[in-house]
Amino acid sequence: MRNLDEDTITQAVLARHAGMSDERLREIITSLVQHLHAFAREVKLTEEEWFAGIRFLTDTGHVTTDIRQEFILLSDTLGLSMLVTAQQNRKPPGCTESTVFGPFHVESSPEYPLGADISNGAKGEPCFVHGFVRGIDGRPVPNAKLEVWQADEDGFYDVQYAESDEHRARGTLYSGPNGEYYFRTIVANPYPIPHDGPVGRMLQALGRHPWRPAHLHFRIQADGYATLITHVFRNGDKYLDSDAVFGVRSTLIADWVLHEPGAAPDDTRMETPFYTLDFDFVLNPVQG
Amino acid sequence: MRNLDEDTITQAVLARHAGMSDERLREIITSLVQHLHAFAREVKLTEEEWFAGIRFLTDTGHVTTDIRQEFILLSDTLGLSMLVTAQQNRKPPGCTESTVFGPFHVESSPEYPLGADISNGAKGEPCFVHGFVRGIDGRPVPNAKLEVWQADEDGFYDVQYAESDEHRARGTLYSGPNGEYYFRTIVANPYPIPHDGPVGRMLQALGRHPWRPAHLHFRIQADGYATLITHVFRNGDKYLDSDAVFGVRSTLIADWVLHEPGAAPDDTRMETPFYTLDFDFVLNPVQG
Repeated sequence: MRNLDEDTITQAVLARHAGMSDERLREIITSLVQHLHAFAREVKLTEEEWFAGIRFLTDTGHVTTDIRQEFILLSDTLGLSMLVTAQQNRKPPGCTESTVFGPFHVESSPEYPLGADISNGAKGEPCFVHGFVRGIDGRPVPNAKLEVWQADEDGFYDVQYAESDEHRARGTLYSGPNGEYYFRTIVANPYPIPHDGPVGRMLQALGRHPWRPAHLHFRIQADGYATLITHVFRNGDKYLDSDAVFGVRSTLIADWVLHEPGAAPDDTRMETPFYTLDFDFVLNPVQG
Repeated sequence: MRNLDEDTITQAVLARHAGMSDERLREIITSLVQHLHAFAREVKLTEEEWFAGIRFLTDTGHVTTDIRQEFILLSDTLGLSMLVTAQQNRKPPGCTESTVFGPFHVESSPEYPLGADISNGAKGEPCFVHGFVRGIDGRPVPNAKLEVWQADEDGFYDVQYAESDEHRARGTLYSGPNGEYYFRTIVANPYPIPHDGPVGRMLQALGRHPWRPAHLHFRIQADGYATLITHVFRNGDKYLDSDAVFGVRSTLIADWVLHEPGAAPDDTRMETPFYTLDFDFVLNPVQG
């Protein structure tokens, strides 16, 4: 311990944790220290580069607030979030795949009856969403709790507007007796992740754009099934192959169908063009 | 890019950086992404653990200010700082070794003539420091700029006191024509790194103490020589084998010698016990 150098330091740090009682924490810190050190050795990190990293993390911390989570953006844009999501949500073929949670979910969003307009005034062309929630065996899942959230046509989620704390284009619904769900909202459009901070500067330095393909977020919970956190992505979006946060899975892509003014699925008469989206969710039963 | 899973995500992220012009940045981000992902795979990081990490980084960012750098503490306590320091400061045997810079250096500290008392009222027993600055060939290095800084007997650096911006136990001196330097200060004592924040909680969870063995910081700059950033550590300190930031190198350990009241090295008469420290620095010539 008195003569640490670039070759002996890693074992010295790990040896310091020999007295730990928490086995899982030891496993995590051991791997973290080994990979952190291996990275620094591999690139022969200089003191100036190390300090640039310290400054980057400091800036990331200072821009993070209750409504802006720059560290989640960093994890998302480095592919870490999608990796964790994928390896923790292995499921049988046929189940709806999971994707990243993202930083814009809100606990306890307003509850709506089936068929309601959850947009609550959010800007965007009207869209009618419909589908079924089923188990992998095809059985309908009634009373599933569906939380939905999305950005408006300017690319912002309700929580990104400082001047209002009203929820728009966000809501909670429950599937009907046959597993059916349906609601009205606005069409999904592509938007850039917040890129006026450290993560935006990082993307620019890496020659990457900050855009996400258009999508609708869902979290679906039902008794006896694993919680599903996912998006439905809009077919034809030009960012499907370059999602800034690596969330796209081809089974999650669906068509938003454009309709001329006329009768809507809820039998109202639309004076403007509108969209419909049909998407069924297949849940994975909880083991045991 | 449309069907990323836990196996394909890493290559997908790296492929996104194919257009970069900055070769060094590509080298760094490639290694960083590979090791970050390898860590998450190796420990099968769960979503809850991932979120605990996000919260930890957020807290670390929020406690970091102009005068408290929690990310540097994090790097120091994980051994990353010492690793970077060691691999960037390889030098011929006989040269004084480098160690971690730490978060408490201040640019433009007050200049003092040789022999001055740099403590400027900092609490602690008096100590007279003396030595020579030489090149590896034994030649004296005159006019070397020596910056010195240390904690007081309560374990705090001057910059940690919110109520004063006066510098204490910190100063800049220049070696004399024969490379000699000498000044008066206070004795070095062990102290804990700031441990009331996220890094302190991490150390506690890891079963580690936050203490550093007593030391005196030096940064030495001279024309024709590589800058030396180092500490002198106090022999006999009980934390020499468990420095919280892994900075100890055995060649940097020296004796603080206790003297009874009487004549001090600067010929003043001391009414209380005092210490002396003798330490010579050997600089590495700049190549070419």
